[in-house]
Amino acid sequence: MTPAVCPEDAKLIRESMQKVMVGTGEENLQHGRDFYKYFFTNFPDLRVYFKGAEKYTAEDVQKSERFEKQGQRILLAVHILANTYENIEVFKGYIRETINRHRQYKMDPALWIAFFTVWTGYLKSKMSLDEKTEKAWFKMGDIFNAEAQRHLKASGLPSTEGQAA
Amino acid sequence: MTPAVCPEDAKLIRESMQKVMVGTGEENLQHGRDFYKYFFTNFPDLRVYFKGAEKYTAEDVQKSERFEKQGQRILLAVHILANTYENIEVFKGYIRETINRHRQYKMDPALWIAFFTVWTGYLKSKMSLDEKTEKAWFKMGDIFNAEAQRHLKASGLPSTEGQAA
Repeated sequence: MTPAVCPEDAKLIRESMQKVMVGTGEENLQHGRDFYKYFFTNFPDLRVYFKGAEKYTAEDVQKSERFEKQGQRILLAVHILANTYENIEVFKGYIRETINRHRQYKMDPALWIAFFTVWTGYLKSKMSLDEKTEKAWFKMGDIFNAEAQRHLKASGLPSTEGQAA
Repeated sequence: MTPAVCPEDAKLIRESMQKVMVGTGEENLQHGRDFYKYFFTNFPDLRVYFKGAEKYTAEDVQKSERFEKQGQRILLAVHILANTYENIEVFKGYIRETINRHRQYKMDPALWIAFFTVWTGYLKSKMSLDEKTEKAWFKMGDIFNAEAQRHLKASGLPSTEGQAA
């Protein structure tokens, strides 16, 4: 069974997301670019998953229309996680859909939990994040990862639980 | 400006969605198939947007793996709308993303508002829906459609506001 989500955790998570809102305004677009600037600067080895951008610097991201759009997509995805977290079956449904959409990228399955380290690092680059809020994000990461690995395995894809026969 | 969302409306909408939950269980999968069975039976002309399924009957949908998956995707999408509705910038971000993903299907722009007639019809085929809840869904439809048409136009695509130059 999936553990119950603490409403206080969900609230802290949603509050931290208010400072990186999606939108069509310049400030919102910059929040998205800033994610990829942080990501590519601090985890350069993971650029390999972004075909054509394997050597992108933060400066390249800043000027890129592709990463302006991609930035909004990642922000939106995390907002959806934050807003469905207390409705756990919807949250898990969105995780499965996200896994399905990433099938083509043949990602290392260990990257799903690693994302939450990247994400909290990004948030800390944008705002102060108290310990309770950071812990809430990592707890979400654990619940996310459990469903992600279960679904990968059920789909016959490599998972950290071992690949299905 | 986007009108403020009434919290009571959002609650009624979320409550009605509890009866068509996404999931991997047989009951959840059937909720999704039931949407397309209702849709194709009552709006057969719209099957044209589902390549290869233009002549599908409800019986064909029932046996189809494609529509089992598609059924979960549409349920999930509407759950995301329901769960982000009170966080209006996220709600609008999800609408824009949905429009972007449908670009390839060259849909008649009038279908975005029409979806809410299909959706409430589907819900009524599954449960009793009181007048207040149905009205709440149509109000969501109006807010959805305003952002959808604005975004279509801004993207240079045909919209019911007239196509951008």
